[in-house]
Amino acid sequence: MRLLEERIQRDGIVRAGNVLKVDSFINHQMDIGLFEEMAKEWKRRFSEKPINKILTIEASGIGIAAIVAREFQVPVVFAKKSQSINLDADNFVTKIRSFTHGREYEVIVSRKFLGSEDHVLIIDDFLANGCALMGLLEITQMAGAAVEGIGIAVEKGFQEGGRLIRERGIQLESLAIVESMDDETGEIHFRAQE
Amino acid sequence: MRLLEERIQRDGIVRAGNVLKVDSFINHQMDIGLFEEMAKEWKRRFSEKPINKILTIEASGIGIAAIVAREFQVPVVFAKKSQSINLDADNFVTKIRSFTHGREYEVIVSRKFLGSEDHVLIIDDFLANGCALMGLLEITQMAGAAVEGIGIAVEKGFQEGGRLIRERGIQLESLAIVESMDDETGEIHFRAQE
Repeated sequence: MRLLEERIQRDGIVRAGNVLKVDSFINHQMDIGLFEEMAKEWKRRFSEKPINKILTIEASGIGIAAIVAREFQVPVVFAKKSQSINLDADNFVTKIRSFTHGREYEVIVSRKFLGSEDHVLIIDDFLANGCALMGLLEITQMAGAAVEGIGIAVEKGFQEGGRLIRERGIQLESLAIVESMDDETGEIHFRAQE
Repeated sequence: MRLLEERIQRDGIVRAGNVLKVDSFINHQMDIGLFEEMAKEWKRRFSEKPINKILTIEASGIGIAAIVAREFQVPVVFAKKSQSINLDADNFVTKIRSFTHGREYEVIVSRKFLGSEDHVLIIDDFLANGCALMGLLEITQMAGAAVEGIGIAVEKGFQEGGRLIRERGIQLESLAIVESMDDETGEIHFRAQE
């Protein structure tokens, strides 16, 4: 998506260790006007799918997912990342490893909010190694829900997550796919998309 | 706000220990249509204020804040709850105590996204003892930003947070204020509002 790629070129910051900071418009400060354009693009790309629920994971996916849900006119469920005393005992739970935070945590969705009647679009801000997505896919499987597709804002195309998801035959729509970046020059190259 | 009170009466669940679960429409599954009506109501109540930024805290405030920001046509900043390696060193940081999770954590906002030019509306889903809000107020003070008001979905009127905020002269608009609730009968009483 040209608009997002241009924004990443302009405001994204490349750091050593293949870190791409987009915190001025995606995952700390959020540009809601941009999110609306992204939501419209996903609506176009998933127009054939009978989506009745958006699924995401806290925290930085929630803002995008809320705007996408508005566009699709369906509810959002966000997976929680650690057991809270306010959560029901009756949950779908799986474990994932976060490389960003260097630790394992549980991903939790209440059984009340995901079931075999659901046709889910999974939304998240970033896809790198795919650990968070694998956790969400496992939860949808436990629930017997159908995954109609996955929408990602920024995919790191040089990490394996995107390939692993596509090999499973899931429609994955990443609006910007970074092929390479250079923290010395600040250059960012995107994979060509239609 | 009548619409929200009715929804809480219908779908809220009262648990022992003054716990009110609204996870089917506010803080696990999110009803975006309801959030849009809440956003319009806050827009009405804060129509005189020169708001140029929404501030919230992860995770459950983010969805509401995104929809409110869309209504106000301004960006959102969400405070993070623990140091992440993707965050700049250059942050406003304060400590708050969460009674829900029974631990202390840091609240963090990058200095890049909050400053003396900002007129902030703080948005959150719940107000009880007010610890999270006090943390956000401290951060806005560090940043030299003006707090134009606070919008809360559900206030527990029998806890002290609301009183403490109002005593500071801040315009606090809670769309539903629970005066009392009974986990045996499931009854919920709201404070009368204009």
